[in-house]
Amino acid sequence: MSQPSIEKMIQQAKVDALLLLSLENIRYLCGFTGSDGALIVTLQERTFLSDSRYEEQAREEIRNTGFKKYRQKIDGLAQFLKGLRIKRLGFESSAMTYEDYKKLKGKLARVSFVPIGAKIGELRVRKNADEIDRIRRAVHIATTSFTEALSRIKAGTREKAIAEFIECRMKRRGGDRVAFDTIVASGPRAALPHGAASTKRLQRKETVIVDFGVRYQGYHSDETKTLVLGPPDAEKQRIYGIVRRAQEKALKAIRPGVSFRRIDEAAREEITRAGYGKYFGHGTGHGVGLAIHEAPSISPRGRGVAEEGMVFTVEPGIYIPGWGGVRLEDMIRVTGRGYERLTVLSKDLKDNILAH
Amino acid sequence: MSQPSIEKMIQQAKVDALLLLSLENIRYLCGFTGSDGALIVTLQERTFLSDSRYEEQAREEIRNTGFKKYRQKIDGLAQFLKGLRIKRLGFESSAMTYEDYKKLKGKLARVSFVPIGAKIGELRVRKNADEIDRIRRAVHIATTSFTEALSRIKAGTREKAIAEFIECRMKRRGGDRVAFDTIVASGPRAALPHGAASTKRLQRKETVIVDFGVRYQGYHSDETKTLVLGPPDAEKQRIYGIVRRAQEKALKAIRPGVSFRRIDEAAREEITRAGYGKYFGHGTGHGVGLAIHEAPSISPRGRGVAEEGMVFTVEPGIYIPGWGGVRLEDMIRVTGRGYERLTVLSKDLKDNILAH
Repeated sequence: MSQPSIEKMIQQAKVDALLLLSLENIRYLCGFTGSDGALIVTLQERTFLSDSRYEEQAREEIRNTGFKKYRQKIDGLAQFLKGLRIKRLGFESSAMTYEDYKKLKGKLARVSFVPIGAKIGELRVRKNADEIDRIRRAVHIATTSFTEALSRIKAGTREKAIAEFIECRMKRRGGDRVAFDTIVASGPRAALPHGAASTKRLQRKETVIVDFGVRYQGYHSDETKTLVLGPPDAEKQRIYGIVRRAQEKALKAIRPGVSFRRIDEAAREEITRAGYGKYFGHGTGHGVGLAIHEAPSISPRGRGVAEEGMVFTVEPGIYIPGWGGVRLEDMIRVTGRGYERLTVLSKDLKDNILAH
Repeated sequence: MSQPSIEKMIQQAKVDALLLLSLENIRYLCGFTGSDGALIVTLQERTFLSDSRYEEQAREEIRNTGFKKYRQKIDGLAQFLKGLRIKRLGFESSAMTYEDYKKLKGKLARVSFVPIGAKIGELRVRKNADEIDRIRRAVHIATTSFTEALSRIKAGTREKAIAEFIECRMKRRGGDRVAFDTIVASGPRAALPHGAASTKRLQRKETVIVDFGVRYQGYHSDETKTLVLGPPDAEKQRIYGIVRRAQEKALKAIRPGVSFRRIDEAAREEITRAGYGKYFGHGTGHGVGLAIHEAPSISPRGRGVAEEGMVFTVEPGIYIPGWGGVRLEDMIRVTGRGYERLTVLSKDLKDNILAH
């Protein structure tokens, strides 16, 4: 997986134009930050199309790109594409619904439609210095917001109150919006890998998974802490230790050239060897950037190898129904020789025991 | 547009099973509130499929529905559908990407795929008493949060600070999450119909569009106020008055049996007659429920007629580049004889002049 330019993608797919529909790719390629539109790229020109709600905003934001207003999206795209007189149209098939595809194709009977699938995800996979900078700032906002919440993470507080506090602080510190609904899952609820914060109150001796992130100038942070309220018993220590070692193993495997599968395997082997393989059901990580989940996929099915500039999470976990769970998540960027951790909060157990 | 049951939809499309992919339809039909999965409905049974992240949550939440875990979504769906030995599969074509469609179809060569398009939107179009109740509670949270923000809407405050305040209050009052990024667009920025709150500071004499909403137990609120900082000049009074009359005309047109086009026309005629037709580029309204934008569409292209129990917005606007804009938005439900306003804040100009 290398990072092709959009022009190279057009040439490789042997298409005359490429239709982009995901807001992240649109923002990446032309700068538009609104929430509806389409971008059509040929080797000669780029045109962003949207409706009247976004006309003025688009004209302010877009760079090296023309603007065309439509009244109705599919009609507008069809009309514009007809004017280009193209024969082969590449389209972002992971961002176009089957319904829109059928409608557009119905209006462009002479055009061959060429789906550009997973390949499109490679467009943004290596981050430049400006992107890394925005991610660092997102991480900084999330880190300070989480830290301010620490004194509230104690027996008696409702999960929702903790999520709300972190989210408000992230907004106040300049975040565009939360990256996802903050996860606060305590006690047995920590066995839910995506346990949305509930009205449950935290109790003494419970573990609490807190998974939080923010979007800043389009770019996301993503981090998970597992906290223990009071001294952990032997089983909590053991399971936390297994997840921690799994995370360390995966992190140590990261360097340019190593396959994503190998990184996943490094974490998975550690958990499986300890006898908890079946309690680690998800992949070890995912890319983060303009989207909170993007390429690459660090999983048993992940294809490709790490390259300098990629940014992804490393987040093994163990989830035991009835007992609870532990997940530890950091974000890293791949460097020339290894990796740099972008998230800064400690994942050592001793730093995650809350005594109050 | 009536509200068919899922079973009736299966019979009308002459399919053996229906594959649902939108989280709103999944939640509506089986109760799952997480963020990934698929629901397969036959006349005999319903099965919700998801991965290990959501297994425990799904088993707790779903009603009258079986659960099946998959490792990889498309593979899991294909395997399950093979077991059903069906010939014709209806699928939610507005919620399935072309890429997933191709992958799934590739694994089920003998199955005919039948796209169920706009029709699927009718599934949730009439709200029952429980749904109306949740919408009312969402409106109540949003209303009180907005009201608390009023003292901050004054010259010198940044748009973002107002948005952040409203959003935090909505969370604190029990909202699941914001319905959309709160719009605060002041002065010339009010000409952006979707002007995300910026770092711009409000100035004396400006108009400010505030469009805010929250999700509560899955259901959304959506409302827009246009405020004037200090006494409005003649032009502001005139344009506000036109939008207000347009909104009143549209509201008065609402009763069971009236077409959505007629409701749109009622607002549009008023604005066009005043000479501002080209400055009202969007539709007059949209349905609101489990999704913030859903059927019906109250626009020149909207199809169908109002029926008791439908909930939608009425939100005409005038946006003049360089000058600014006015939008007034209420949510209503269609009653047996007319309509009931669900939002409660006054849209009269006299109640929207902030003197401080």
